[in-house]
Amino acid sequence: MAPTTRRGLCFEDLTIGAEYQTAGQTLTEAGIVEFAAQWDPQPFHTDVEAAQQSIFGSLVASGLHTFMVSFRLYHRHGLLEGTALAGLGLDEMRFLKPVRPGDTLRAVITVVALKPHRNADRGVVMLDLATRNQAGETVFTVKLAVLVARRAYFEE
Amino acid sequence: MAPTTRRGLCFEDLTIGAEYQTAGQTLTEAGIVEFAAQWDPQPFHTDVEAAQQSIFGSLVASGLHTFMVSFRLYHRHGLLEGTALAGLGLDEMRFLKPVRPGDTLRAVITVVALKPHRNADRGVVMLDLATRNQAGETVFTVKLAVLVARRAYFEE
Repeated sequence: MAPTTRRGLCFEDLTIGAEYQTAGQTLTEAGIVEFAAQWDPQPFHTDVEAAQQSIFGSLVASGLHTFMVSFRLYHRHGLLEGTALAGLGLDEMRFLKPVRPGDTLRAVITVVALKPHRNADRGVVMLDLATRNQAGETVFTVKLAVLVARRAYFEE
Repeated sequence: MAPTTRRGLCFEDLTIGAEYQTAGQTLTEAGIVEFAAQWDPQPFHTDVEAAQQSIFGSLVASGLHTFMVSFRLYHRHGLLEGTALAGLGLDEMRFLKPVRPGDTLRAVITVVALKPHRNADRGVVMLDLATRNQAGETVFTVKLAVLVARRAYFEE
């Protein structure tokens, strides 16, 4: 029905266990401070001097910044571009290691479950998102539940 | 140790079941479109015409926008201002009802659990955040795990 430009995969084209690698993004000191000043203004995210006295010992990115950058990397990958109908929820969001200025983040998207939906033209896709830094350490993980169109959704 | 200005509650001052009401924020069409254009550029968040063809029927805020606004309302409330040492994770984030331009969001923060930590000068606080619109409908919920200082953390 919807005249959306569709470039991503429909529900029936997804496979449990399939993995996709996103592009990367480097977090800068300026980016970390500006994001946190707007959304999460805690001293260890916005104030280099105060951060030295925090349990982190130096400036660290807000976990929400790591999450938002990871989500955008996932979105830009395009796996569900135009086929994602709605986000349903997120679970088990974990901030595993500090992210610091100069760190480059990349995410791995894994399809972990495919569930039917009461509407026959769509399904629920469960994705794991794992974000790694330039040293290959996993710094962040989250599970996403997304409502995704089947091909029938786009047929007249 | 830390010379942080402390205005919020320490771990031992928190009580399970205590509820706190945040201030409100109205989401505008401009705010919804600008946020989504930066972080979650799906047509039903950024394009009024395309949104009419979506399952929502009109423009809706990104769930991430609702989450970030809710988190900022929680932060600005000040419950753990200067005593939160780190965010540990988030669970069961649910987008329950669409948020549309003109909706005003307020959150209720509830202390749901208090757990000891291996470091005696801090503890883990579990909070529920429930965001309601102007009609009193709950549109969003999430659980937060926060590492919080005991008073001993600030003593010399």
